[in-house]
Amino acid sequence: MLDKTPNKKLSDLLDQFGAALAAGDIDKAVDCFQDDCYWRDLVAFTWNIKTMEGRDQVRDMLASQLAKTKPSNWAIADGEDASENGGVLEGWIRFETAVARGFGHIRLKDGKIWTLLTTMVELKGHEEPAGFARPLGAKHGHGKNRPTWKEEREKEAAELGFKTQPHTLIIGGGQGGIALGARLRQLGVPTIIVEKNERAGDSWRKRYKSLCLHDPVWYDHLPYIDFPSNWPVFSPKDKIGDWLEMYTKVMELNYWSSTEARSASYDDTKKEWTVVVRRDGKDITLRPKQLVLATGMSSKANMPAFKGMDSFKGDQHHSSKHPGPDAYAGKKAVVIGSNNSAHDIAAALWEAGADVTMVQRSTTHISRSDTLMEIGLGSLYSEKAVQSGITTAKADLIFASLPYKILHEFQIPAYAEMKKRDAAFYKGLEKAGFMLDWGDDDSGLFMKYLRRGSGYYIDVGASELIIDGSIKLKGGVEVKEIREHSILFSDGSELPADLIVYATGYGSMNGWAADLISREVADTVGKCWGLGSNTTKDPGPWEGELRNMWKPTQQEALWFHGGNLHQSRHYSQFLSLQLKARHEGIPTPVYGLQQVHHKG
Amino acid sequence: MLDKTPNKKLSDLLDQFGAALAAGDIDKAVDCFQDDCYWRDLVAFTWNIKTMEGRDQVRDMLASQLAKTKPSNWAIADGEDASENGGVLEGWIRFETAVARGFGHIRLKDGKIWTLLTTMVELKGHEEPAGFARPLGAKHGHGKNRPTWKEEREKEAAELGFKTQPHTLIIGGGQGGIALGARLRQLGVPTIIVEKNERAGDSWRKRYKSLCLHDPVWYDHLPYIDFPSNWPVFSPKDKIGDWLEMYTKVMELNYWSSTEARSASYDDTKKEWTVVVRRDGKDITLRPKQLVLATGMSSKANMPAFKGMDSFKGDQHHSSKHPGPDAYAGKKAVVIGSNNSAHDIAAALWEAGADVTMVQRSTTHISRSDTLMEIGLGSLYSEKAVQSGITTAKADLIFASLPYKILHEFQIPAYAEMKKRDAAFYKGLEKAGFMLDWGDDDSGLFMKYLRRGSGYYIDVGASELIIDGSIKLKGGVEVKEIREHSILFSDGSELPADLIVYATGYGSMNGWAADLISREVADTVGKCWGLGSNTTKDPGPWEGELRNMWKPTQQEALWFHGGNLHQSRHYSQFLSLQLKARHEGIPTPVYGLQQVHHKG
Repeated sequence: MLDKTPNKKLSDLLDQFGAALAAGDIDKAVDCFQDDCYWRDLVAFTWNIKTMEGRDQVRDMLASQLAKTKPSNWAIADGEDASENGGVLEGWIRFETAVARGFGHIRLKDGKIWTLLTTMVELKGHEEPAGFARPLGAKHGHGKNRPTWKEEREKEAAELGFKTQPHTLIIGGGQGGIALGARLRQLGVPTIIVEKNERAGDSWRKRYKSLCLHDPVWYDHLPYIDFPSNWPVFSPKDKIGDWLEMYTKVMELNYWSSTEARSASYDDTKKEWTVVVRRDGKDITLRPKQLVLATGMSSKANMPAFKGMDSFKGDQHHSSKHPGPDAYAGKKAVVIGSNNSAHDIAAALWEAGADVTMVQRSTTHISRSDTLMEIGLGSLYSEKAVQSGITTAKADLIFASLPYKILHEFQIPAYAEMKKRDAAFYKGLEKAGFMLDWGDDDSGLFMKYLRRGSGYYIDVGASELIIDGSIKLKGGVEVKEIREHSILFSDGSELPADLIVYATGYGSMNGWAADLISREVADTVGKCWGLGSNTTKDPGPWEGELRNMWKPTQQEALWFHGGNLHQSRHYSQFLSLQLKARHEGIPTPVYGLQQVHHKG
Repeated sequence: MLDKTPNKKLSDLLDQFGAALAAGDIDKAVDCFQDDCYWRDLVAFTWNIKTMEGRDQVRDMLASQLAKTKPSNWAIADGEDASENGGVLEGWIRFETAVARGFGHIRLKDGKIWTLLTTMVELKGHEEPAGFARPLGAKHGHGKNRPTWKEEREKEAAELGFKTQPHTLIIGGGQGGIALGARLRQLGVPTIIVEKNERAGDSWRKRYKSLCLHDPVWYDHLPYIDFPSNWPVFSPKDKIGDWLEMYTKVMELNYWSSTEARSASYDDTKKEWTVVVRRDGKDITLRPKQLVLATGMSSKANMPAFKGMDSFKGDQHHSSKHPGPDAYAGKKAVVIGSNNSAHDIAAALWEAGADVTMVQRSTTHISRSDTLMEIGLGSLYSEKAVQSGITTAKADLIFASLPYKILHEFQIPAYAEMKKRDAAFYKGLEKAGFMLDWGDDDSGLFMKYLRRGSGYYIDVGASELIIDGSIKLKGGVEVKEIREHSILFSDGSELPADLIVYATGYGSMNGWAADLISREVADTVGKCWGLGSNTTKDPGPWEGELRNMWKPTQQEALWFHGGNLHQSRHYSQFLSLQLKARHEGIPTPVYGLQQVHHKG
């Protein structure tokens, strides 16, 4: 065996695995896996987003799905070579199922599968019209009274939602709704996106004026059109707003701006939603088959209820409503909270000349942006990665190939390294009284994002202002009462305030379902986001995947889509294929539908 | 020598050539060339667009430019391999000059240079902020009252042209002005683009409604942002209009729409233009250092002056003003002309139910779109080319590497092949009375485009309508007189008409200089476009490059930019570098400034 190349080893394993699957021999297939193994499937086998952990779960999934999936043609992906490093052999693979073509990633240890990622790429017979299959555009030949492209687009826009009904209705036209809408457009699924703001991109434009993306450009591409090579690393909010607006236009999305979703209910018999939206002051009733809430995993504001808030004489608002610092020069501003928004807003207020105090109620994780870029994302999402052939699509799949169950193990050493490198910085923060943490298990920022979607700040400058005392810190206290011109704390101290910004975070996305559909449906689907890691704000039991995101929920035909630009890009692929299959009447036997343990 | 690899042979030659140049030994350098040789230089050596044909011209150029250029570091380009086929060894090369980095292409025969292409890529110290050097976007750190990206953009837009002056003013905001404007933006050259229409893209939107690009998508990319893989092969005009509009926005161009250039004059002492533009009904005086006319090589309408035109009672207009067919169902329409626009308009009129006659006054070349795509462009600009690694940038350079002097020799066999393949089609046209040609030397469509910019139709369906008589043909006659309701021809026949479309082509771009600046300046710079091939409508003497395009003219600080999307993309690189060098005060010693032989 020693003289085998990595390619030969991998193709031998794939032959063996493929033959077992083709023969329906589940024992033999399972025998291709290590005892300690992970099979993450994005739609291809499970019509779900699901990680099987260990041989028993692999066996159980295959027992349920193998006969329905009929996988075949397992091989190393065209043009790719397997590689071997430190006892792990890894490679890109392709395969087919009865209805789809798939792509994946595999890692072997001792000749057996340690991690397997299988993803659905396209449904056979329903491939996107791109590349060799791109549309002709011009209508060659001739015919009397043929409509032009423009006439056809105008007709579609005029009729969809009135004469004809969308198959899928997406509520929320931020990056999530837009990316999903673009994919559904390419797949030929009639779709409307409704957005309460006037213009696509306003969900960014309307936030506080100093906001820039905290994720770098390589991580942020939308499907189909990459940001150009001159695009800033961290896009200013208005620039990303303009990009989203142009994208919506050139991708020909049916985007209903200035439109508010008012109510929705599902008819179990008709298998159809009734959704009332208000557009230009008029109620319109839509009857889509599928309903997607893409309203933002960070947009259901958590507004605290402090005693005396009504009596406050100054300005007070949730961070999501903060208009920017311009009106507060010379004023006393208090920011309650110590995560990303709190830091950004506090720094912008200080820059504009306000007297700023940040109220830190609990510990916060801080990563310096430069360090995070280099140590955290550099190998997958950076100019260096691009130059060494790690395209965004590959980076997404490599990232997806790491099972959530062990992801923290990869994160812990990276954050230990960051802690060391920026020791002086952290010492300064501690000296200023800032209460730091690194996550319950020292796994840092990204695990916090996945587990609870909060609890951190990516430092782009505000920490220095805290260290040098420019931004004052009030730490380890709770707000006891809001008075007419001040805040009273649990330690008895009182802080004068002309402005209070409640940077107190966001609630679970199923809150949107409660608002739009019913509390009952919201409770039926339960909490969104989080892994069930049994760490702070992410109660168990272990789920293995983000709750309710991009996959079937306990409410038929109701979906949640959201997350950062990376997730909007990557997971919209899998959600769009699930919706397309339902649109075409292709059977979608869901394996392992998520159980609900928390209401939200 | 036989055992040398192509790489070794090429690097040996480059070493020898580079050493001769470094030593200032022009004889030795010239000795590296074949007797029959071509050196095409795009700005790197000549600060011009210039082909040296034969050793004497190479020698003359080097005698003038070598000491000023100081070329060095000649090598095979990184990651590229030379290849050898049929006695021709070819490869990609890189080099430097005193002020710039260059890239090129070379072909050797018998170990000596047959063709050499040298192009300027970037000016040292003035590289575009892209890739590793892309801007940060976010402003890390902190500072009191820092403006945001949006505030900075708004300030720039408010001040440029008023408080501050653009270095370069581009008249015309079609694809040419937009592509050049985007490059100048990246190079940090303050630029305004003025466009008479209301929106970017209107120059396409306002043309006849059935218009689609005749060039395929792979040929049409703009700089920086490629069309996505789902973009149609032949883009409908409104769709390309929308793309140009979004591009203008996201590339942050200072684009003055609804603005008309009214007059321009050059102050030889101040080295500055005075240009009056009317924007929102108000005259604004701009004082740019450089003036670019990007008003379109197909937009200065040639309106014929037939006897009796004033008396015509129906509708008559130039093809560029044709509103589309909708109003002409059941009417008698006559289209004078038989090139692209004539065919497109005639077919659209027929489709809308008009009774259509095309008047063919002289022979026309016709290529079927499918055949042209496959035989004419397929190896460089197609999905297949993309799949085999021919990026658009490489295709542009391969294309640019073929000297105009011998380009027709590559074209003639391709068109012979097309003639054979579509023999039945051409027979049908001839039977219908259509007068065909293949160019004076059978070199076909593309040479006609370069030599005269006219004389052909790329068939997408109208020819079939001529073959089957749906579009009637009146051939080999001249218009003698327009009457109230008819056209009288030189053969004495009379044709009733409710609509006359004059698809009679366009004049030379220096006509714009006459309108805007003066007849004198227009005559000083002379005719634009054409190679001096001494074929129909392209009088000699031989020029070797397109007249006046993208290069210095006889009028200091006046430039012409235009052509199809390919040319707008490719040549904007070289025009932008010429303008950037002047903006930075880098010496730009022009070699071989074009002489003027024709006034336009």
